[in-house]
Amino acid sequence: MSSWGDSLKISVFGESHGKGIGVVIDGLPAGVRLDMEGIYLQMSRRAPGKDKTATPRLEKDIPQVLSGLLDNTTTGAPLCAVIENTNTRSGDYGNIMSCPRPGHADYTGNIRYGGFNDISGGGHFSGRLTAPIVFAGSVCRQILAEKGIRIAAHIASIGNVNDIRFDPVDIPSELIDRLNVSTFALIDQSAEEKMRAEVEQCRMNLDSIGGTVECAVTGLPAGVGSPMFYGIEGVISSIVFGIPAVKGIEFGAGFDAAKMKGSQDNDEFYYDGDTVRTRTNNHGGILGGISSGMPVIFRAALKPTPSIGKQQNTVDLVKHQDAKLEIHGRHDPCIVPRAVPVIESAAAVAVANLMMQVNKL
Amino acid sequence: MSSWGDSLKISVFGESHGKGIGVVIDGLPAGVRLDMEGIYLQMSRRAPGKDKTATPRLEKDIPQVLSGLLDNTTTGAPLCAVIENTNTRSGDYGNIMSCPRPGHADYTGNIRYGGFNDISGGGHFSGRLTAPIVFAGSVCRQILAEKGIRIAAHIASIGNVNDIRFDPVDIPSELIDRLNVSTFALIDQSAEEKMRAEVEQCRMNLDSIGGTVECAVTGLPAGVGSPMFYGIEGVISSIVFGIPAVKGIEFGAGFDAAKMKGSQDNDEFYYDGDTVRTRTNNHGGILGGISSGMPVIFRAALKPTPSIGKQQNTVDLVKHQDAKLEIHGRHDPCIVPRAVPVIESAAAVAVANLMMQVNKL
Amino acid sequence: MSSWGDSLKISVFGESHGKGIGVVIDGLPAGVRLDMEGIYLQMSRRAPGKDKTATPRLEKDIPQVLSGLLDNTTTGAPLCAVIENTNTRSGDYGNIMSCPRPGHADYTGNIRYGGFNDISGGGHFSGRLTAPIVFAGSVCRQILAEKGIRIAAHIASIGNVNDIRFDPVDIPSELIDRLNVSTFALIDQSAEEKMRAEVEQCRMNLDSIGGTVECAVTGLPAGVGSPMFYGIEGVISSIVFGIPAVKGIEFGAGFDAAKMKGSQDNDEFYYDGDTVRTRTNNHGGILGGISSGMPVIFRAALKPTPSIGKQQNTVDLVKHQDAKLEIHGRHDPCIVPRAVPVIESAAAVAVANLMMQVNKL
Amino acid sequence: MSSWGDSLKISVFGESHGKGIGVVIDGLPAGVRLDMEGIYLQMSRRAPGKDKTATPRLEKDIPQVLSGLLDNTTTGAPLCAVIENTNTRSGDYGNIMSCPRPGHADYTGNIRYGGFNDISGGGHFSGRLTAPIVFAGSVCRQILAEKGIRIAAHIASIGNVNDIRFDPVDIPSELIDRLNVSTFALIDQSAEEKMRAEVEQCRMNLDSIGGTVECAVTGLPAGVGSPMFYGIEGVISSIVFGIPAVKGIEFGAGFDAAKMKGSQDNDEFYYDGDTVRTRTNNHGGILGGISSGMPVIFRAALKPTPSIGKQQNTVDLVKHQDAKLEIHGRHDPCIVPRAVPVIESAAAVAVANLMMQVNKL
Repeated sequence: MSSWGDSLKISVFGESHGKGIGVVIDGLPAGVRLDMEGIYLQMSRRAPGKDKTATPRLEKDIPQVLSGLLDNTTTGAPLCAVIENTNTRSGDYGNIMSCPRPGHADYTGNIRYGGFNDISGGGHFSGRLTAPIVFAGSVCRQILAEKGIRIAAHIASIGNVNDIRFDPVDIPSELIDRLNVSTFALIDQSAEEKMRAEVEQCRMNLDSIGGTVECAVTGLPAGVGSPMFYGIEGVISSIVFGIPAVKGIEFGAGFDAAKMKGSQDNDEFYYDGDTVRTRTNNHGGILGGISSGMPVIFRAALKPTPSIGKQQNTVDLVKHQDAKLEIHGRHDPCIVPRAVPVIESAAAVAVANLMMQVNKL
Repeated sequence: MSSWGDSLKISVFGESHGKGIGVVIDGLPAGVRLDMEGIYLQMSRRAPGKDKTATPRLEKDIPQVLSGLLDNTTTGAPLCAVIENTNTRSGDYGNIMSCPRPGHADYTGNIRYGGFNDISGGGHFSGRLTAPIVFAGSVCRQILAEKGIRIAAHIASIGNVNDIRFDPVDIPSELIDRLNVSTFALIDQSAEEKMRAEVEQCRMNLDSIGGTVECAVTGLPAGVGSPMFYGIEGVISSIVFGIPAVKGIEFGAGFDAAKMKGSQDNDEFYYDGDTVRTRTNNHGGILGGISSGMPVIFRAALKPTPSIGKQQNTVDLVKHQDAKLEIHGRHDPCIVPRAVPVIESAAAVAVANLMMQVNKL
Repeated sequence: MSSWGDSLKISVFGESHGKGIGVVIDGLPAGVRLDMEGIYLQMSRRAPGKDKTATPRLEKDIPQVLSGLLDNTTTGAPLCAVIENTNTRSGDYGNIMSCPRPGHADYTGNIRYGGFNDISGGGHFSGRLTAPIVFAGSVCRQILAEKGIRIAAHIASIGNVNDIRFDPVDIPSELIDRLNVSTFALIDQSAEEKMRAEVEQCRMNLDSIGGTVECAVTGLPAGVGSPMFYGIEGVISSIVFGIPAVKGIEFGAGFDAAKMKGSQDNDEFYYDGDTVRTRTNNHGGILGGISSGMPVIFRAALKPTPSIGKQQNTVDLVKHQDAKLEIHGRHDPCIVPRAVPVIESAAAVAVANLMMQVNKL
Repeated sequence: MSSWGDSLKISVFGESHGKGIGVVIDGLPAGVRLDMEGIYLQMSRRAPGKDKTATPRLEKDIPQVLSGLLDNTTTGAPLCAVIENTNTRSGDYGNIMSCPRPGHADYTGNIRYGGFNDISGGGHFSGRLTAPIVFAGSVCRQILAEKGIRIAAHIASIGNVNDIRFDPVDIPSELIDRLNVSTFALIDQSAEEKMRAEVEQCRMNLDSIGGTVECAVTGLPAGVGSPMFYGIEGVISSIVFGIPAVKGIEFGAGFDAAKMKGSQDNDEFYYDGDTVRTRTNNHGGILGGISSGMPVIFRAALKPTPSIGKQQNTVDLVKHQDAKLEIHGRHDPCIVPRAVPVIESAAAVAVANLMMQVNKL
């Protein structure tokens, strides 16, 4: 399903080369004034074509709000935003149905929908469907910001080139400010050149490259979340895995914690004035599924774009035999920079739901 | 919330030292004959006290089925299983409320529930609450087995000691048979000695150690799952993070995929007779959220048991000051071996829901 | 919330005088060819302005499908249909916020949304929002028709003028054919004149009139539904009460059953060839929440349109005092004829969900 | 499904003659002190055997709370209550599977569950399963009472004998007090004799009789509920139809509103001091799905108990032929008096969810 959420539900629709894509957001609090420019900014961070890491295919992702807003203020009714597709169905992808692209959902989508799914540009599986998520997330971010909750992500790695990580106990507001407007979001900006070189090399080789995104939520009060199946980790992961290419997620020390001893992993509590804090933050701001008041921190792993120019082996489903495939057209050699605002947005929708569950939004 | 699922819902209840714990399973197909001995076997794999990696505290986890079964056959009505607690509230944990244990949910639970939550033995946050998950999962496993779907997990690592991984394109049935009855489940059994030594050393040092569990689902037909928010990754992760101590999850190549090039990560399709398969399985049996017919493979990271004997710094919430804490009582120095059947069980509940969504169960 | 459903979810959006209204339908089976003319026909049955019972305000309810359809065949991805509003915000309703209209949601909406809801034309509370329900229901009807399930409703009464009721054990296919294309759907067409006279008299008196709609679902196989909270009555009622003006619903003999003896109300079973049927159908095709194979029959009570031309007492929320109100503009003196396809549509969405739950769709 | 609710979920389990029945309540606020005697009182109002209107079969419905309570105060964890069945499976109902009882779920349950459902005493379809609903509702009532919300119902009619109705604009607290402890709840107690005579006559004739229950919710603040599918009517009806024998529900003037003119049905607003009220209450406290601050009022129609002593025609599913059936054993000739606390309880669970949705609980 392409719907998600309880208290605040999003319902994403659209196919890459159909008439339009968009999202309905149901359950928004009324009376929140939205900064539309701020939303467009986030959408433009996700939009393709800004540099060589991204596909040069142009999208004008100007969302039209059909409902739920009056004078840019939420009415409490479902907010529907539509983005028209200007780049509609063409012959570019004509051979996909017969020869599924390795790493793509062509084959699984074909089986799941009995061959009736729209395959142009990936259809409903396309990364383009993350644009509505960014819209919804940008709305939620603005609502959360009113409660002092901020969300920022950065490119933690591309291939083997790493950015430094967030200091998990101290994420300065200025850093968040900077990351939130960046199209190549890095903590240590000196990593950019190396990362771009890595991507450029892949592009030249008709190849692509994966990476990781690290995301932090600051200002989340202690006591948000629930044990077991409505824990923060479960809620965030269930929406983040809705983003194409995400194949892993970890919170706090994550997979590193699996190598640690309890005495290393445990974060000791202390009083910082009247506030209980921890000196380290291996728990990623979450204990027993519930926020501790420390920053919530997670990292998502994104596989390399499966669309590559190199010839690949596949099958021909029509002829029932093995086949060779060359994918033409222009594709992002690395989608990690553009995934940054998408992951922030997914986190925002998740946190809005979590806040609502405990009557804090 | 402690409820999970759509087509097949589980509702877990209980507190560690309360009268009883259990689960209601709603939405089970009628007419499935359950092998109760098989269920007890899985529950005993999770039960503590079998060896030095586990707490010697004895639990008699014999579930009593109150409803939903007639002659061991599902009636279609909700199945409720209750496990009585013989080890009920005691004074052992008297200081927790004042001094939250680092790494535990004591502090966050206290804030979330305004101090009203049952803290004895961890209350509803206790690892003991995984027993009902194993019950529910064991029921689902048997139902799935009738469709040729099998689930097996093993200890992929404890600290820095690793088992070998599943061969992701070929998981022999005999291996699954063996793992499914093992209390220290390993593919390469020669790793056991080293792992036990690692755990024993931690125990001697009043410390604990984390690890990872790898889980495979075989026999899942292609075409199960959905794009976006009902993808297999999202569904499995949302229940697996309901297991205490899980801090990360990855599917297929997972975080390694983030370092790969598209030409490495893409799994090429080929015809194996009439069946479309992939030669490698970096996609972990999932493309676009939907099963490809290859084994579904994921790994979960478990942090070390936070209950350790060493003295730790914490706060005294009553006195409003920093404090020292020594945890007495007996605790697992490593919960990874016991987590194996829990993760298999969570996967089984998830897969049962996924199968139902596409009318295959 | 304006979302409904489990296996097949609808998410309705829009405000009466906003840019557009519409619906996202998520979970549709792929590969169903839709007859768009058939959908437009149902929408035109609901559209206003066809005669004196309806408001002369013109709406061009031509839905534009943005996604989920390829060559008029469902792709399995969410189907979004948008209806543009040509009649957008005007000054017609300027005094509503200060003086809530009796019988309308002006007052309650104002409290619920802190005064931020769009009040023009009733905003999200407007009867116009039933157009997307008719769209969604028309899609579902076509899918159900492929399984031999048909849905038909008629005006059971307007004020004190009654149509005859369905013969609950025998609803001829020809009657359904006729009702399904009628804009003033009656079993006994001789009632039309009297009903129209009743409505016309109300219109002349600047008043309005209520009525009831009776709806039948035929061809639903026995064994659909569930005990307790997913019973057919509960599922249908939870969506039917989403239609403005509905204040009551009854299944089978309904409120009459409350006056009956068991020996009268019980429907005896008999074999009609190989099929188990009942000789009477006081149970309305539902026993224990589950279909018996007999027609499912329910009646909904609709209150009179609250917008009337007569002067009424109300309050002035701004001046904090009692006030007089005269509603100008054109309003349906009776919405019952137009409610017929809306109720059929809500039933269709409900039945599609019920069928999916038992793997029959 | 036998689960219901969003913010506060109940999961009911059990079969009439199985080991036990009960309910898990998930999502309760922590820190609410429950008056257990008050809960038992409500359960005893529902319990059978108190007089000739009820079955003399004895049930000891003493619920055992397994979790979620500490010192009778909610911990925030799921609360599970179990009622042991002392009257377990017997031969009394041996012929049901072959010959389904008219008016019962025997036939539909048999089809739905392929003959695997437990038929003893009606299994999961039994009216006995309303005991857990009363438990859950009694918990919710106490929580609502802390917010000034009270719920009371009465026998509005048995057969053709009527009680007077609530004055919908003024429901005195003393009346609620009296109704809430009554086992034959009437506003006008002089109706009791006639009602009992009606029931006794049915009993003597080996017959049964239906009736209606009217329920009022007072103290619900204005602004609770939502337009469309989370309106108060839809939410209440979806749980009330989960009570066996309910075949109709109406809010406010309900089916009478269908005969009214707008000028009659519209409830005019006025200021009562600072409070906006309506002089009449045909809207039953609900406009646009949202509470107006006036009492919420609804009536439910209950069909007569289908178990009657008279010989009835049915079919023999085994022999595939028509058959005669005589039901022995003791059955309520009228379940309406016992349904009163059940309907109050269902309303309480519904209202608790509605209050939570708007952050008021």
